[in-house]
Amino acid sequence: MSQVVERLREGLGDRVKVDEATRDAHRRDWWVLSELQDLQGRGPERPLAVVEPQSVEEVSRTLTICREARTHVVTYGGGSGVCGGIRSEAGDVILSTAGLSGLVDVDDHNLTATFRAGTNGLAAEEEIQSHGLTIGHWPQSIGLASVGGLVATRSAGQFSTAYGNIEDMILDLEVVLPDGQVLRTRRTPRASAGPDLRHLFLGSEGTLGVITEATFSLRPLPEASRGQAFHFTDLDAGVEGIRRILRDGFRPAVVRLYDAKESGRNFPDDCPDGRSFLILLHEGPEELVAAQIAGVAKRCAEIGGTEANAATVDHWLGERNNVPGFDVFLEKGIILDTIEIASTWEHVAPIYRAAIAGLEKVDGILSASAHTSHAYRSGTNLYFTFLARPAEREAMEATYHACWRSVLDAVVAGGGGIAHHHGIGRVRSGRLVEEVGPVGIDLLRTVKRALDPDDLLNPGALLPASTAGA
Amino acid sequence: MSQVVERLREGLGDRVKVDEATRDAHRRDWWVLSELQDLQGRGPERPLAVVEPQSVEEVSRTLTICREARTHVVTYGGGSGVCGGIRSEAGDVILSTAGLSGLVDVDDHNLTATFRAGTNGLAAEEEIQSHGLTIGHWPQSIGLASVGGLVATRSAGQFSTAYGNIEDMILDLEVVLPDGQVLRTRRTPRASAGPDLRHLFLGSEGTLGVITEATFSLRPLPEASRGQAFHFTDLDAGVEGIRRILRDGFRPAVVRLYDAKESGRNFPDDCPDGRSFLILLHEGPEELVAAQIAGVAKRCAEIGGTEANAATVDHWLGERNNVPGFDVFLEKGIILDTIEIASTWEHVAPIYRAAIAGLEKVDGILSASAHTSHAYRSGTNLYFTFLARPAEREAMEATYHACWRSVLDAVVAGGGGIAHHHGIGRVRSGRLVEEVGPVGIDLLRTVKRALDPDDLLNPGALLPASTAGA
Repeated sequence: MSQVVERLREGLGDRVKVDEATRDAHRRDWWVLSELQDLQGRGPERPLAVVEPQSVEEVSRTLTICREARTHVVTYGGGSGVCGGIRSEAGDVILSTAGLSGLVDVDDHNLTATFRAGTNGLAAEEEIQSHGLTIGHWPQSIGLASVGGLVATRSAGQFSTAYGNIEDMILDLEVVLPDGQVLRTRRTPRASAGPDLRHLFLGSEGTLGVITEATFSLRPLPEASRGQAFHFTDLDAGVEGIRRILRDGFRPAVVRLYDAKESGRNFPDDCPDGRSFLILLHEGPEELVAAQIAGVAKRCAEIGGTEANAATVDHWLGERNNVPGFDVFLEKGIILDTIEIASTWEHVAPIYRAAIAGLEKVDGILSASAHTSHAYRSGTNLYFTFLARPAEREAMEATYHACWRSVLDAVVAGGGGIAHHHGIGRVRSGRLVEEVGPVGIDLLRTVKRALDPDDLLNPGALLPASTAGA
Repeated sequence: MSQVVERLREGLGDRVKVDEATRDAHRRDWWVLSELQDLQGRGPERPLAVVEPQSVEEVSRTLTICREARTHVVTYGGGSGVCGGIRSEAGDVILSTAGLSGLVDVDDHNLTATFRAGTNGLAAEEEIQSHGLTIGHWPQSIGLASVGGLVATRSAGQFSTAYGNIEDMILDLEVVLPDGQVLRTRRTPRASAGPDLRHLFLGSEGTLGVITEATFSLRPLPEASRGQAFHFTDLDAGVEGIRRILRDGFRPAVVRLYDAKESGRNFPDDCPDGRSFLILLHEGPEELVAAQIAGVAKRCAEIGGTEANAATVDHWLGERNNVPGFDVFLEKGIILDTIEIASTWEHVAPIYRAAIAGLEKVDGILSASAHTSHAYRSGTNLYFTFLARPAEREAMEATYHACWRSVLDAVVAGGGGIAHHHGIGRVRSGRLVEEVGPVGIDLLRTVKRALDPDDLLNPGALLPASTAGA
């Protein structure tokens, strides 16, 4: 047993797991490339140990011991990341938040709820709904993700157009810093008290600290919740419809527009062939929902949208998180993934076309499609899905990188942002410079070095490997 | 002429002003304590020079020269801060953003506009309105403040309940870092690409960089804009009304509730004696505004609110930024100020009562009152105003500190946050630890030291003087 494991055992007893099954299960997240490599027998290495602290003090103790031993610590929440944010090496310690689970408090009057970071996202939402309230954060990963992971990756939910993203919901955080100190931000609805410290950890992907608790600002369950659907001649027309809806001050909770391929696949009975399908869900007080439905219908009609069967939205709501695992595809020699990006309005359709054209040039491409699902005043996201089966199985990894490259090249050249809500992890770390510039990379490195001078927290994720030495 | 001034002259020519009038005019912001000390002939010292760069390159050059000379640089925008964020010492260089003024671009399709940081807030809003659009950010200081200052202080506007605060409006920033490098964040509606770098500079109060450009996500001018007013038995009942409005999903742009004293002072014709007056402004598409007015009326009636003359709101809109200068009061021996804090709902009324009780115990107090003007799902702000005339003029400064202490003691003990939107500056720096904790102070210092190792940018503001040596 290595010295650091001995010391962790002394400090944390049976929180420290060294059995092969536990270590195996914590080697990686849901990044498809890690899964492919696993299937090929060359996946991520087993970590040295998995530590499951039960308290913030135990998290602090874990970091202190690992810091003294110069041992890398990778925080593991729900393991549902899809960008390779978690990928262990042989000498790493995995800090699992599974032991930090459950509701700390819920407060109907103030509309607040605090969860420990390891709480499952869906369990948290269901707990809150049992009080007649909602967090309103519905990432597709909600059944797998942890509360801490949702914060650490800057996640977005399917209801974001009305309810905002994770950063619009978090009231305060508790974070253990790399040096073992515990930061607790003040619980106030808004502050002008220096830089907002929550934002150092939102999106930090385990590199700047370990989130141990998060307090949400909640909503009551809405009085009314009603669907609405339209189809448009093409994606461009639908994007113009969404732009108009947002511009005029309407905020449906759900706004999802599919290109012709995805419309045909997902709504074969409701969307005429070759058209682009838009589904909306309006939530809120009855009088606002009714007014919004009327206002949106008028605007969509003005730009050529055709109203479709609203019951489609209920069907989508029921099915929305049922997605197949990657394994059935990988076993057939098919490599696949999703890539979510963001852009101001003018660039959305050109980026869509350029990225799809790029994907279609990749050898072995089977399908390239996209939808948009998070709208803002000044733009929206695009969510690409690709499947490819290269002639040789050995080429799957190269094909994967070719697909990613073709999309991100189109995004960067087209003036978009490279990551809307999945994070950077390892799949995008080499391209982060195209998002924040070399000065932004320097700045992130400066902050990282200041908080974690020995680069012990999740090295290799988020920031690209430095050639100049960290 | 000092060596640093010589070098600035070499590098920046006539951008460097050393005449007494210019140096005098840039010694301080609107902090009433600086103004009082000025009147007493012991105000802030004249800086060494005032530099007015005309380009981002000139800002970078200014910082580089000052860094090499180990000279403090204090950025000066509109000078409208009220917390002492700007307060020069004899050896300082003031970097004025007055030369960095004007619109860079406005884009109706994407709803974006970029301004150079020295642009006056009202000039920016008027420019945007000439395009049929609005920034929608209306701090009371709008006629004086600069765009960069609004960002650097995390300002809030009077229409914030619907439109959000400055952090909800800024799409991207250009910032010159202490080492002279220029950071430009990506212009995308939302990203999950590491910690949000904009938030290092929002609220940084000139300590982490010099903001040189800011891009806003705009709105069209609203189709409808209608006032509504109510009065309640007391502040508690009115706060409960606001809580209910927000909870049920309504978002008036303006939500302002005055205590009995301010209601009587501001709305003598519309608010019965001793009651608490609430004014609301609803903006948006006609159908949503109509529905919201009906929904709010119903809810206010349910908790005992009495509908009042809505024309009051128009009057308020016309008069809202007409506030007297401090000088007329100071000359009469009256010391006065405003203190804005924030709190979750449960603490609002208790903090209000404790703070007013505390103020009323201060020797010489003439008036202590408050209103709330920025509502959120989980709480609201309180905006206290105090006037005091101690028996001896020499006691004005001590009286001032006693008033601040009595309010912030009540806020901290009552579970609130010490600063809602004016910032920290010097008036609150000694209390920042009560907002972010000792670990938060350490973390802010760590980030400051990493970006500005010689503590050259606005030392003395935001962070308390360190006894352990920065």
